[in-house]
Amino acid sequence: MLATLSEDGLQAIQILDQTLLPAQAVIRRLTTLEDVAHAIRHMQVRGAPLIGATAAYGVALGLQAADIPAHDQRLADVLATLAATRPTAVNLHWALARMQQALMPLPVAQRAAAAWQAARAIAQEDAAANAAIGQHGLPLLADLAARRGRVQVMTHCNAGWLATVANGTALAPVYAAQQAGLAVHVWVSETRPRNQGWLTAWELQQAGIPHTLIADNAAGLLLMQGKVDLIIVGADRIAANGDTANKVGTYLKALAAAAHGIPFYVAAPRSTIDFACPTGADIPIEERAAAELDSPLGQDTAVANPAFDITPATLIDGIITDTGLHTAQHLRP
Amino acid sequence: MLATLSEDGLQAIQILDQTLLPAQAVIRRLTTLEDVAHAIRHMQVRGAPLIGATAAYGVALGLQAADIPAHDQRLADVLATLAATRPTAVNLHWALARMQQALMPLPVAQRAAAAWQAARAIAQEDAAANAAIGQHGLPLLADLAARRGRVQVMTHCNAGWLATVANGTALAPVYAAQQAGLAVHVWVSETRPRNQGWLTAWELQQAGIPHTLIADNAAGLLLMQGKVDLIIVGADRIAANGDTANKVGTYLKALAAAAHGIPFYVAAPRSTIDFACPTGADIPIEERAAAELDSPLGQDTAVANPAFDITPATLIDGIITDTGLHTAQHLRP
Repeated sequence: MLATLSEDGLQAIQILDQTLLPAQAVIRRLTTLEDVAHAIRHMQVRGAPLIGATAAYGVALGLQAADIPAHDQRLADVLATLAATRPTAVNLHWALARMQQALMPLPVAQRAAAAWQAARAIAQEDAAANAAIGQHGLPLLADLAARRGRVQVMTHCNAGWLATVANGTALAPVYAAQQAGLAVHVWVSETRPRNQGWLTAWELQQAGIPHTLIADNAAGLLLMQGKVDLIIVGADRIAANGDTANKVGTYLKALAAAAHGIPFYVAAPRSTIDFACPTGADIPIEERAAAELDSPLGQDTAVANPAFDITPATLIDGIITDTGLHTAQHLRP
Repeated sequence: MLATLSEDGLQAIQILDQTLLPAQAVIRRLTTLEDVAHAIRHMQVRGAPLIGATAAYGVALGLQAADIPAHDQRLADVLATLAATRPTAVNLHWALARMQQALMPLPVAQRAAAAWQAARAIAQEDAAANAAIGQHGLPLLADLAARRGRVQVMTHCNAGWLATVANGTALAPVYAAQQAGLAVHVWVSETRPRNQGWLTAWELQQAGIPHTLIADNAAGLLLMQGKVDLIIVGADRIAANGDTANKVGTYLKALAAAAHGIPFYVAAPRSTIDFACPTGADIPIEERAAAELDSPLGQDTAVANPAFDITPATLIDGIITDTGLHTAQHLRP
């Protein structure tokens, strides 16, 4: 069974290189802080929860570096390097803050060993939180399946097990529905420019769940035609007021869902909620390289490539977390 | 100067093969009905107005075929072959109906020569209609540019001169604005799965108009960020009630424009309005080949690829035609 992230003894971690999927499933061994920062920046690991857990292990690898003498400042340097990899996903910052809290009070000599333990705890909690998301989301799908014979879910980007340590977020209720014997079909949007929809389709292939790939542009028509019963997406950061940053294109789907009275849900572990961030306008939006669009147009055509957008809480029917189903506009710390 | 469609003596036409742009600008010589049907079906010529004019010339080529004896039924056969190429764009059917009206009353021996004349008239009228669209749309841009220093237009797909015999539809007001000395910038969405946004960017490069390419998914964020002053798109068919079929993804942009109070305009010659079609629900949506999505996922992943969607008249602030600016919900024959 493939895993997105696992320990390789006490000196390294292994990751599944997601930039090569679905063509190849290549496992990479990461042994240094720089390996981890590179893997996050270049999206070999992606998905907000997985980025957080991987960064936690990055702290452990950074603190055990044999060629750098252990000193008090090293922890801060390691945290700063990892924090700079990607700006939007809050789980990254949440995981690093938790590592800092756990390690800072300790003597320098004990920090590396403690970092492995703390990272392991974060990873295990992510898998458990996502399993809980699946159970809390399941009744939404079961209700629709009971009324219609089968349930048609639309998602965006990849928020399956590939985006997490295990179980997925947006896809966790889909997997739970399959285990409960419900008939479920998933509409998978390509998710340009990086085509993470391919990862979702690949996951669903592995699980034997019926699904259909579409261009991102087709979502509105399918909703208009009544071919979608609900939308579930993941999240990279949820502001205190429920506004949600997720992969660019999410907002367009939320608008279309609202126009057709189709429920729109966000599924994410509670660590994705950033109570220090009042609204969506306060969430930084990562601008990625123009090259991701693979345009043949050359230098005379400018390119803009924001990686995320903001879906206002008013368009979100509920946020499914490990603690239950919450109203987006009434989140409580 | 490149042209999308031109006559080559009295025996052939020349088209610019748009499937090879922007990498190569290749002119193809079409001499038979089958050449024309192939060019339309495979989108070597595309854009509703250009499809109509090219099909009209296809009638002329079909009627002059040396190896098929002229007989009364030949006209109906030629029209049927061309009508079957693409289902959504009404200009195709409008042009064929006009050819039928012009030719059917004539003796069989005179039809081929008359077909060339009728096709030429359709092509010339398209160029003139689009020039008029540019002038009728110009005040909308001039007003915004006067208030803001420059005007930021968003478009979808390609509705420039490449989509017409000349001048373009959605881009006609942009070209008119440039000629009037206004500062204009265009947001160009890729338009997956076939990337006709590349054609728009290529056109704007040729014209020296500043523009920025984006993934289709980014449109909602840009509107939320206040970076778009108005949206102008073309149309493949406008129903009598103003509902508009255009390239898939148009509807999502219209929803986002409405959410942010940004005006959304459709620009098309009056031949795009189908008064025989009561509403958008009556417009057939072409389903194109799965291969257009270039998915690496193989047979275990289904693909849906609708080429168009329907934007309800309620989301359209105005329809710019060759006769002026019209309210979408009050079109009159």
